[in-house]
Amino acid sequence: MGILVVGSIALDDVSTPAGQRQGILGGACTYFSTAASLYDRVSLVGVVGEDFPQEHVRFLSARDIDLRGLQVVPGRTFHWSGQYGEDLDEAQTLDTQLNVFGAFHPVIPDDLRDLEYVFLANIHPELQIEVLEQMRAPRLTALDSMNYWIVSSREALTRAISMVDLVLLNEAEVRMFAERANLLDAAQHILDLGPGAVVIKRGQYGSMLVTRGERLGERLFIAPAYPVANVVDPTGAGDTFAAGVMGYLARCGEDSVAALRRAVVNGTIIASFTVEDFSIDRLRTLEWSEVEARYNEFRHVTHFDGLTVEEMSPLTQRIC
Amino acid sequence: MGILVVGSIALDDVSTPAGQRQGILGGACTYFSTAASLYDRVSLVGVVGEDFPQEHVRFLSARDIDLRGLQVVPGRTFHWSGQYGEDLDEAQTLDTQLNVFGAFHPVIPDDLRDLEYVFLANIHPELQIEVLEQMRAPRLTALDSMNYWIVSSREALTRAISMVDLVLLNEAEVRMFAERANLLDAAQHILDLGPGAVVIKRGQYGSMLVTRGERLGERLFIAPAYPVANVVDPTGAGDTFAAGVMGYLARCGEDSVAALRRAVVNGTIIASFTVEDFSIDRLRTLEWSEVEARYNEFRHVTHFDGLTVEEMSPLTQRIC
Repeated sequence: MGILVVGSIALDDVSTPAGQRQGILGGACTYFSTAASLYDRVSLVGVVGEDFPQEHVRFLSARDIDLRGLQVVPGRTFHWSGQYGEDLDEAQTLDTQLNVFGAFHPVIPDDLRDLEYVFLANIHPELQIEVLEQMRAPRLTALDSMNYWIVSSREALTRAISMVDLVLLNEAEVRMFAERANLLDAAQHILDLGPGAVVIKRGQYGSMLVTRGERLGERLFIAPAYPVANVVDPTGAGDTFAAGVMGYLARCGEDSVAALRRAVVNGTIIASFTVEDFSIDRLRTLEWSEVEARYNEFRHVTHFDGLTVEEMSPLTQRIC
Repeated sequence: MGILVVGSIALDDVSTPAGQRQGILGGACTYFSTAASLYDRVSLVGVVGEDFPQEHVRFLSARDIDLRGLQVVPGRTFHWSGQYGEDLDEAQTLDTQLNVFGAFHPVIPDDLRDLEYVFLANIHPELQIEVLEQMRAPRLTALDSMNYWIVSSREALTRAISMVDLVLLNEAEVRMFAERANLLDAAQHILDLGPGAVVIKRGQYGSMLVTRGERLGERLFIAPAYPVANVVDPTGAGDTFAAGVMGYLARCGEDSVAALRRAVVNGTIIASFTVEDFSIDRLRTLEWSEVEARYNEFRHVTHFDGLTVEEMSPLTQRIC
């Protein structure tokens, strides 16, 4: 199938209650690529400066990530500096230096325009639209965004949202974009623009998947976060969550509601590993068997009753 | 089996974004009794003043709630006044007049000392201990508490907790009592005092059930809140949640982890109805068939995969 991801590649300074790191590999595109490479071939499109360490390029290549869309241009790489307090749910940005990322225009190499799965990480919605317009026959497109674009580029973001199949936003962003306090109403507002599914990210409380349907149990799936004993660095949790979702869907080749639910659980599991170390470091050593073990444990954490065989039919397919 | 509940009976003034009500029936004991009476015979022990409207006594009697433990004494009934902002999760207390509740000492009528299920609503932990010492052979005891007692009566609360089987506290209270930020660690601290289970209430995000066990999926169950289209008044959500838990356990007569999980879901469902109107008004008309319908819908909202028959065995028993 093949997944295209477009987004930021960064060098981060991160401070959390567990410690501090400087100049570590970051950026939505990096987190997503690394995590999604557990599932399928990933092609990334992004930009770095001449200061970007070769070791990171070698690492991404070693994950079989296609770097033909990686632009290396004169100047410095995007640099983000942030810190987390005891409430690990939200980062406080201390400094943002866009550097070469400020002039980034995603050019999709011709070979990659046929990729079927497209993830538009949090970049200017106009750029997200540029990417979509370059793709020839995407099967499933998804985007992430943030409060900044909702305020500054609402019109473009609305257009971008109307063009994709799947929208991933956090709870506050969904309410802010839809201007509705009730999350289900807010998600329905987004569905009414065109997407088939909205995933609402709720940090330590997990996520909700909202699709169309008559009954609540058809159109809503709620997944808690997988409880992690020791959260070291929450950076990239949302991006690797998205990677688990898109990775699973690409690997399975299904897009049923049942597949979407399992995809959300995959996202949950991948994110739970990501936060166990700084940068993408936990993902470096993550084995597929660890993902499977946590996935199965998660069923026991969330299920309270067996569905009857008949009721179970749309949900019985096991992880691919 | 029979359930004993000891706690406050109040007349409340409540203001929420959906409206205001004055002098409405409130109090943890009232909410619990009304909700638990859907499941089993409830005996309440509490105190009211001479101003307590007879219509409320008639209502409780009509629910087959045993009022032999209801003390009616000279003076005014406990009065609570509170308001909720747009974030409906936490009430701001505007006024508390303990009145006759200030001198309340629970005296359990002799007949009721044989009841097997005991719920100690949020009252002074010394009083909770007094109740427990009066019971002859309780099968399952549970308590609720609050930040106030954690700060002012930590020793008594610790003793009360060590005497019960089940502790229900909200997320902040669990962390505060255990002096640990990680919820699972904090719950384990409470289990180490003696109880077999801790239920952590998380408001709009649902609840967690923590029991003993090796694997995470054995010792942890996470349930989201049932999404309610229009929350009118959150007062009593926690008490009726506890009522669903205790009511289900009393009715089923089981105390396995599987039964506890289904009990937590029952609590979730009952609480979801409670918040749809002021006071206990939604419970006045609530039919058992509505509880069952929401319970089954909830399975579809939370399950993403079928457990295999073998794995499912401890969880397959249907709602009693």
